[in-house]
Amino acid sequence: MSKMTIKVLAAHLGLSISTISKALKDSHEISATTKSKVLQAAAEMGYIPNPYASSLRKQKSKTIAVIIPEVSDSFFAQAINGIETVATLMQYHTLIYLSHDSFQVEKEIIKHCSNGRVDGVLISVSKQTTDTLHFDLLKKSNIPFVFFDRDLENYEAPKVLTNDFESGYLAARHLFSMGCSHPVFLSPSDSLSVCNRRYDGFVKASEEVGLINQPNNFKVVDCHQQPENITSQIIQILQKDSNIAGIIASVEDLAIHGYLACLELKLQIPNDILLIGFTSIKTADLFSPTLTTITQPAFEIGKRAATILFELIDNKGAQPSNYPVILPSTLIQRASTGNLTKKA
Amino acid sequence: MSKMTIKVLAAHLGLSISTISKALKDSHEISATTKSKVLQAAAEMGYIPNPYASSLRKQKSKTIAVIIPEVSDSFFAQAINGIETVATLMQYHTLIYLSHDSFQVEKEIIKHCSNGRVDGVLISVSKQTTDTLHFDLLKKSNIPFVFFDRDLENYEAPKVLTNDFESGYLAARHLFSMGCSHPVFLSPSDSLSVCNRRYDGFVKASEEVGLINQPNNFKVVDCHQQPENITSQIIQILQKDSNIAGIIASVEDLAIHGYLACLELKLQIPNDILLIGFTSIKTADLFSPTLTTITQPAFEIGKRAATILFELIDNKGAQPSNYPVILPSTLIQRASTGNLTKKA
Repeated sequence: MSKMTIKVLAAHLGLSISTISKALKDSHEISATTKSKVLQAAAEMGYIPNPYASSLRKQKSKTIAVIIPEVSDSFFAQAINGIETVATLMQYHTLIYLSHDSFQVEKEIIKHCSNGRVDGVLISVSKQTTDTLHFDLLKKSNIPFVFFDRDLENYEAPKVLTNDFESGYLAARHLFSMGCSHPVFLSPSDSLSVCNRRYDGFVKASEEVGLINQPNNFKVVDCHQQPENITSQIIQILQKDSNIAGIIASVEDLAIHGYLACLELKLQIPNDILLIGFTSIKTADLFSPTLTTITQPAFEIGKRAATILFELIDNKGAQPSNYPVILPSTLIQRASTGNLTKKA
Repeated sequence: MSKMTIKVLAAHLGLSISTISKALKDSHEISATTKSKVLQAAAEMGYIPNPYASSLRKQKSKTIAVIIPEVSDSFFAQAINGIETVATLMQYHTLIYLSHDSFQVEKEIIKHCSNGRVDGVLISVSKQTTDTLHFDLLKKSNIPFVFFDRDLENYEAPKVLTNDFESGYLAARHLFSMGCSHPVFLSPSDSLSVCNRRYDGFVKASEEVGLINQPNNFKVVDCHQQPENITSQIIQILQKDSNIAGIIASVEDLAIHGYLACLELKLQIPNDILLIGFTSIKTADLFSPTLTTITQPAFEIGKRAATILFELIDNKGAQPSNYPVILPSTLIQRASTGNLTKKA
């Protein structure tokens, strides 16, 4: 089937391409009779004006981009749903891009977004991102953007975050109160601000109970590997230090692989070891044992970030607030932080 | 911060917009000296050519669209990863659109995609989709597309599917072999071809063991509701027919809410009722009891669909094969289909 182009339309009507083009643009150079003839034929033959051409005129893509590291995490799935409730109301399309936690990919995506293709960007940065030049490019292009969940700590931009420091503190206090004096904090990266803030809270709680902070209670587990490799990294951590009596999993994947590691090592949760995970996973109640979680308001974070973005889109040139919006998380206690028999 | 436009560039150089534009397009009307001056100033001042304009010339967006009903299902998360391995190799961007299982939204997305914005489309249709006019629009626009997982049964187009009929047959045979003679088949829709094929397999297996097929062993559960409502729909189904001794959950969400419903009704899995789910969920081993699954080759399905799409993009006008590619699923037996005490 041949594509219905302006060329085909011109040939059909016996007119020049330039005449057709001008008629479609409602140019004063073309007579009303010709315009009407062109429009009628275009409608009949199913001619669709090229969106690039029409966007050039309108300078509005009616599209926003959401850039996230991955889709297989409940937090991002729920945040996207929050974002889309707002975008749908605003009659915008939402494009989702995955950075796969690669700084290089993130930069490419931002470049792809930074020149009129989208009207705004919502982003949760990759774990490798420390450089900010690509965000400066967005600023220069006058395309508003809002960080959600994962931000760049010292970079000035609108942000919607959760209370990571307090949640890390709460998680650690909870493990201590259940009798665990030797927990380990698992993180997918040592440069991800969101996890570092959680760890800082963990450190503060440790200090309060008189534990001298040791750097080896922070362990990085590379989550961009085959599933069995993620589990085996945790197994190695637990084998190297048999005193570990609690795991704080700072992301969902680490909670799941924490379970699997304990299963392989025949460590009973919560008898031998406690487990708490930062996750909005909807199956926490189905796990054996059920999983204690720090549950983020994922849907609300997405919704709020989108609301701020549309305010910026509607009011281009407005100075966005650089104070982050903080929506608090909740500790939901379940069986994985129950009675610890081993007191390490 | 003002946007660096061709207008600003023209003002800076003291040249007309038309001259700048022609210089950037390497027009023969402009002298080599002027061209060089314009290009240098454009580079220095950070002028980015509008992609719509440059796409108009190149007619290549180097972008594909992936349209899926939702992201919170492991199948789609894994399929996307499969798609992206191919797209990355081809140096293409992947845009993910969510239809939220709405036909209206799906049509809007297709319209958004159907005019040069993307070079090809991968789609898993919404549960409401029965009409095909929007796909005809893609054909007319000469934009290749490939269905994956969820297709339109009688619509001729390239497809990558799994062996749904055989899997439904296998799932039912398995429940029968474990002593369950009264299973129920849960489906998110009565018009979704993928679930209907699974149900047809279920019916064939039922007939083979001498069970006269009854329409009330097929139950539709609306999954686009608040979580507690999904669970309560299943609770009602189980309460209305206390003979039910097995659940075949034809999508992941129904397996999860099947567990939750049994939990609320204090039905022990597998003593009182068996449960098998069509899902690629990575936590099947962590559930209590562990979940027997029909696991689809999600990553491979995504990879294969993308490979076919790029063949069509590279070779526009080629007649695509209308025979679906079938990648088989696997039954993985776990504890949720163990010893049934109740023999119904």
